[in-house]
Amino acid sequence: MGPHPAVADVRRAVRLSLAGLRPGSLVLAACSGGADSLALAAALGFCAPRLGLRAGLLTVDHGLQEGSDQRAREVAALAPELGLEPAEVLTVVVGRAGGPEAAARDARYAALSAAARRLGAVAVLLGHTRDDQAETVLLRLARGSGSRSLAGMAPVSGIYRRPFLGLSRARTREACAALGLRPWEDPHNSDPAYARVRVRKRVIPVLEEALGPGVVEALARTARLCRDDADALDEWADAVYAKARGPEGELAVDVLESVPAAVRRRVIHRAALAAGVPASALGAVHIEEAERLVTGWHGQKGVVLPGKKRVVRRYGTLYFVDNLA
Amino acid sequence: MGPHPAVADVRRAVRLSLAGLRPGSLVLAACSGGADSLALAAALGFCAPRLGLRAGLLTVDHGLQEGSDQRAREVAALAPELGLEPAEVLTVVVGRAGGPEAAARDARYAALSAAARRLGAVAVLLGHTRDDQAETVLLRLARGSGSRSLAGMAPVSGIYRRPFLGLSRARTREACAALGLRPWEDPHNSDPAYARVRVRKRVIPVLEEALGPGVVEALARTARLCRDDADALDEWADAVYAKARGPEGELAVDVLESVPAAVRRRVIHRAALAAGVPASALGAVHIEEAERLVTGWHGQKGVVLPGKKRVVRRYGTLYFVDNLA
Repeated sequence: MGPHPAVADVRRAVRLSLAGLRPGSLVLAACSGGADSLALAAALGFCAPRLGLRAGLLTVDHGLQEGSDQRAREVAALAPELGLEPAEVLTVVVGRAGGPEAAARDARYAALSAAARRLGAVAVLLGHTRDDQAETVLLRLARGSGSRSLAGMAPVSGIYRRPFLGLSRARTREACAALGLRPWEDPHNSDPAYARVRVRKRVIPVLEEALGPGVVEALARTARLCRDDADALDEWADAVYAKARGPEGELAVDVLESVPAAVRRRVIHRAALAAGVPASALGAVHIEEAERLVTGWHGQKGVVLPGKKRVVRRYGTLYFVDNLA
Repeated sequence: MGPHPAVADVRRAVRLSLAGLRPGSLVLAACSGGADSLALAAALGFCAPRLGLRAGLLTVDHGLQEGSDQRAREVAALAPELGLEPAEVLTVVVGRAGGPEAAARDARYAALSAAARRLGAVAVLLGHTRDDQAETVLLRLARGSGSRSLAGMAPVSGIYRRPFLGLSRARTREACAALGLRPWEDPHNSDPAYARVRVRKRVIPVLEEALGPGVVEALARTARLCRDDADALDEWADAVYAKARGPEGELAVDVLESVPAAVRRRVIHRAALAAGVPASALGAVHIEEAERLVTGWHGQKGVVLPGKKRVVRRYGTLYFVDNLA
């Protein structure tokens, strides 16, 4: 008799995500104790030795809830029976930059990356599911951005891998139940103070009621297709940027004129970042204004960019300069 | 004293959309009598003579509601005071293909296009607003498709122009009120039997409640950015298609291998359509299966496509052939 179908699903997803890793390498599961990352940790503990890989567990104590340290220790204590070694609790201090969700996320990824480096891991697996992806797409939609943003979370990004983007959250719960694992229910996951929780609890049910079931799958598929689109455009923009760029980071206007708007704006974006404009402050509106120096040129003085920079047009070239005004 | 700000807004939008049309040309407003298209018709009647253009009105009687013929005549009867001449009622017979909304839309556009041809019009203006665009994006999202689909409705498509994609529906109501025009409230616009109505009445309010105001604007901005992305990818795909295509519509695998997935799939899509696969039946899943003949080649027999076609790989080439099996 084989494993429960949900267990088979999570193991298959993890196995696929480990393909190509060199035997003997260390892979870590990031585990909060919730159903998704608990199923992930269990599946990693099962699959890794069969692929000749070593597997460990990281759990983050954000210090934001009463007893979070105790819970983190409990999660780490599960590791041996899941076949995971080493297992570490990473204690982080969450700042305030960008709001509570962004600050917690930044602190968490910084700690995970540092631990992975220290332990010599080649990959860190994250438990995000198809439901998380759908929520991400809806959150991004509300920001009003293009393909890259709607692409949601990447299946692979640096050392991070997300094997469960094609699985439902419910499936990870089933896997935990079948394995006799009791997931932790994070009270933050039902706190409507968080935009993501509001999307999960209010928006998605209404979308499903209005448009029929399958909305979550459709949103996840949208993310995949938008990711492919964005990857292709990035490749094109990289090539055009290499061609348009001068020795001091300036851009040749005739090259920018010869490509579609979506590519031109990506090239200007790259050049602005290279000139020292801070990514966090650089918005679509800045890029569109700068683009008008190419597409709507009538002798403008230039466009002010964040980080005390300015882009000006001289002799058929865009220069990114310090804004001394 | 200038016109009411809402009237100025709708006129500005219409004026911009008429830029570049040759003086003496005829432009038609498609008008249901609803606030958006009534404001559109009024603005066209005002702007056209000032730009040396002739302007007329078309209204469609779908024959789906009691008294629709009477109402259509009333809309047409408004034309002279709006400065629109000719004004025509187009009576259509709505079929059933694709569901009631799609069938009504198909019948409407067929009638509008035929009338425009017959009258020698160079453009037909449509009253779709930013709200309609946001609804369209949400409806497309639920289908799970990429940038082209999320691009929503085009500002310009063939003879059709949509000047109001940047204006809210509320603004067109204000314009009507300021002009003393009484729009018709189509009962279909509040009938929850229609997916679009459910999106408007249920989904968007919940999205705004969960994510804050500005969701409609964000969705419309998403549409614009996705349109630019899709246009760029189409341009790339056209170039690759021209390079990959052989004399009988076959595709060179090495060319397909050399481009990103988003471009490769668009090229395969083009070739499948050219081979006679019906567009309405050709889904992303077919294209992805056909793509595996390039990216996951292990001697497969080929992939069956709608319209009794098949795509097979032979000697480094994809051929689209009749499916005789």
